[in-house]
Amino acid sequence: MICWNNLDTLKSYQALSAKNEKPDLTKVMAGEEGAQRARTYTVPMAAGLSYNYAAKQVNEDILSGLAALAEEAQLVEKYEALLSGEVINTGEKRLVLHQLTRGQLKGTVTADGVDKRAFYVAQQEKIAEFAAKVHAGEITNAKGEKFTTVVQIGIGGSDLGPRAMFLALENWAKKNGCFKMEARFISNVDPDDAAAVLNGIDVSRTIFVLVSKSGTTLETLTNESFVKDALAKAGLDAAHHMIAVTSETSPLAKSSDYLAAFFMDDYIGGRYSSTSAVGGAVLSLAFGADVFARFLTGAAEEDALSLEKDIRKNPAMLDALIGVYERNVLGYDATAVLPYSQALSRFPAHLQQLDMESNGKSVNRDGEPVSYPTGPVIFGEPGTNGQHSFYQLLHQGTDIIPLQFVGFRASQIGTDVVIQGSTSQQKLCANVAAQIMAFACGKQDDNRNKHFEGGRPSSIIIGDMLTPEALGALLAHFENKVMFQGFVWNLNSFDQEGVQLGKVLAKRVLAHETDGALKVFSDLLGI
Amino acid sequence: MICWNNLDTLKSYQALSAKNEKPDLTKVMAGEEGAQRARTYTVPMAAGLSYNYAAKQVNEDILSGLAALAEEAQLVEKYEALLSGEVINTGEKRLVLHQLTRGQLKGTVTADGVDKRAFYVAQQEKIAEFAAKVHAGEITNAKGEKFTTVVQIGIGGSDLGPRAMFLALENWAKKNGCFKMEARFISNVDPDDAAAVLNGIDVSRTIFVLVSKSGTTLETLTNESFVKDALAKAGLDAAHHMIAVTSETSPLAKSSDYLAAFFMDDYIGGRYSSTSAVGGAVLSLAFGADVFARFLTGAAEEDALSLEKDIRKNPAMLDALIGVYERNVLGYDATAVLPYSQALSRFPAHLQQLDMESNGKSVNRDGEPVSYPTGPVIFGEPGTNGQHSFYQLLHQGTDIIPLQFVGFRASQIGTDVVIQGSTSQQKLCANVAAQIMAFACGKQDDNRNKHFEGGRPSSIIIGDMLTPEALGALLAHFENKVMFQGFVWNLNSFDQEGVQLGKVLAKRVLAHETDGALKVFSDLLGI
Repeated sequence: MICWNNLDTLKSYQALSAKNEKPDLTKVMAGEEGAQRARTYTVPMAAGLSYNYAAKQVNEDILSGLAALAEEAQLVEKYEALLSGEVINTGEKRLVLHQLTRGQLKGTVTADGVDKRAFYVAQQEKIAEFAAKVHAGEITNAKGEKFTTVVQIGIGGSDLGPRAMFLALENWAKKNGCFKMEARFISNVDPDDAAAVLNGIDVSRTIFVLVSKSGTTLETLTNESFVKDALAKAGLDAAHHMIAVTSETSPLAKSSDYLAAFFMDDYIGGRYSSTSAVGGAVLSLAFGADVFARFLTGAAEEDALSLEKDIRKNPAMLDALIGVYERNVLGYDATAVLPYSQALSRFPAHLQQLDMESNGKSVNRDGEPVSYPTGPVIFGEPGTNGQHSFYQLLHQGTDIIPLQFVGFRASQIGTDVVIQGSTSQQKLCANVAAQIMAFACGKQDDNRNKHFEGGRPSSIIIGDMLTPEALGALLAHFENKVMFQGFVWNLNSFDQEGVQLGKVLAKRVLAHETDGALKVFSDLLGI
Repeated sequence: MICWNNLDTLKSYQALSAKNEKPDLTKVMAGEEGAQRARTYTVPMAAGLSYNYAAKQVNEDILSGLAALAEEAQLVEKYEALLSGEVINTGEKRLVLHQLTRGQLKGTVTADGVDKRAFYVAQQEKIAEFAAKVHAGEITNAKGEKFTTVVQIGIGGSDLGPRAMFLALENWAKKNGCFKMEARFISNVDPDDAAAVLNGIDVSRTIFVLVSKSGTTLETLTNESFVKDALAKAGLDAAHHMIAVTSETSPLAKSSDYLAAFFMDDYIGGRYSSTSAVGGAVLSLAFGADVFARFLTGAAEEDALSLEKDIRKNPAMLDALIGVYERNVLGYDATAVLPYSQALSRFPAHLQQLDMESNGKSVNRDGEPVSYPTGPVIFGEPGTNGQHSFYQLLHQGTDIIPLQFVGFRASQIGTDVVIQGSTSQQKLCANVAAQIMAFACGKQDDNRNKHFEGGRPSSIIIGDMLTPEALGALLAHFENKVMFQGFVWNLNSFDQEGVQLGKVLAKRVLAHETDGALKVFSDLLGI
């Protein structure tokens, strides 16, 4: 029997709060104790990754408290319920099935009279078949020329995730001979976004992927028209250049405007859709369906790990719990995501959406206000770039910001130079190792301006190389972390009512049905 | 006589704190009062921009308090002292002269026996001459072919600012016939960054701009070697493909390794260097020196406005003071920067560096610890994209995050479509107007999940179009805002000691001179 309770009603949380312990990282991360922590405070992940939390402000006592919280909050049971097809999205009364796009962990899930796993697999296969025909030159433009570019038209979850995943694997694919087509993305309703992308490609050799679950997203439909205009001006038939990714019930699903339509459904939120047809179409076209399948494999393995009840064997759950401890007990308001990998340049932006849109809520899953902080601000940029930028505040600012590092032993392309006795890759890795210790231990200096207080917590996910499997595992880790945190905070992490009001008011502005300050701003903006 | 005092010692601040007023935005932004605020709470900026703070949690009383704070903290006097060449960078005992790169507001500034304004103008002219020769085909590669691409090699301030400015004007320049060369950027020590950029260009037609003030930045020198390797492999002489932007005293300054060297100096911090030779070389090559000069003109006009003592006529100072009120009196920890302009896609990342590296400090300009919060976390993405992402938390999360919108009446490219009776540009502008009101006023709903509390403050900078002048004004506005906030907090906003410790430890890792946890992490990362 699963109980859904607010965090502050849980005995284990009250006990954790009452203790309010904060291990001094400048001590516990120093000397042999620090070495011991670095060796032992680590959890294996899928695809050869590991999650190391040695530099977090936890100790055996706090970890026991977090284990008790995991048990009392029934985190794994709730995840099992989700996997089994319970209505976890209480606001919209929907199942939550994004994990099912990459594997089936808890038996058949049926919805709308359909075996949903079979449905997702069928979509993936349809996409694979379509992509293979495009790559083989069986599906071409009207002149019989091969398509060379794919452009995704979508916004929010239909954009950030797939874009971040494309960038993450672009160079890996080029290096490994599986780069099939260039990919571009149009998202913003700013007309300069679409215009610039269209100016930079050969539209006659381009397939556009229109992504909208509902088929009604204003930005996406507007950009579709923008693209159709461009195709028409180039004397091309849009129906031969566009595919749709949408729900079966959307107006786009049965339209003859598209070469093909691939389906998602209401059980997959936009920000969780990278492993569905939303990511599948563009990534399979760009890299081939095999690469996309490998990405799903990594995610599925990580999903399986998230079923572990022992928090020290369940990296996503442990990461989630430590995050809750930082947010609710220690009072930290933001988290920085810092991948030491240029390929992950847009991964922080994707996590920003994933986390802030899922858990940036003030009411619990029953719609009652909660009286504790929920989702933090998430931001980040790749290292080492960030080191020469906002790390100043992270090291010496007045607030403590927990840090989430990611690092890989090997680069993707493998081209490197030795300067001053080390490769660039070694320098990259040396920097992330150094940062963990600099943040944790600081450095005493009589000149207070050069003094580093330390005591700034971080974790790191380490892997061999950013492969499709590693990327899938990384993505699933953060998706599941966010899910577990939502469970702890007793939120519905799968709706987004907070994005509605702006849409309603924007329509009113466009209809000139405004007064007061809204009318003044509309006038000032020339509408 | 200028007095440098900590914020909490100022009577005007104590008075503001004691009042701790927070106007209810759901009331003051409604109806005719809201319309009146939207019309009157606005300050003209340079280049036709305006700063509107109607939706900030201020009223006449608070504004009077902020004016008293500006006076007691001698903000304009301190800015005048900076412009006059006083040693404002107390940590490094240096003048602060970035404003002098775009105009001279307070008479001649002499340093190192040189008229610094004349020095900066001379560099700008040398760059203009060089760029004109490249564009005219007078400076070519060894085969006599014109250069088509410029690649900036730099990190931190030598990367983020120039990159953000290039992206901001790229489409404008293409539209207006002044796009001269493609620009690319290599920054990260991750070897995949340089390798991917090099794989995507024709190196034989490329000029590389090596940017390092000291000539010792490890990432930049490493990437220089990376590039030289690639040039050598292509049978090209690096000395014919590289220019340097550095200080006159750096090892790069007199090297025959470069086609030309352009100079900056120690009085311009990296994050303030977009208007110096650091931005000048790459932007003049990409767009022509005239466009760069127009960018400086916009910045210079904004700098002049920052001399106004009346806070209602000094947009940067007013913005700064409201930010301090939000941070220190109302207790908000982060600020989101949300440009409704795809061209400003990397502008938030630049501001993140500018602000967090300048004011993320815990000691005052005399090196004594301060006991109040200083610089907030800065993050952001362009709208409308962000609306479909992290805005959920901004609207309905448990923390209040002040917002900084930017919007333009017209797009840069001018290609647009009418869908449902409005252009994309109108939709873009309607959305930002709608968001201001949604955040301020919220919406009552009995379903708490659809309830918007409101009371979430924002400001907006509005302009006609993102032109070079508007971009210069926008940049100078934020630079000067950060400067004024540094003055209020009594910080030295112009050094960055917080980036040093990581560098030292990274060197130790690369020299294998580590023990304890640092050795374990080094091993885990395969170094």
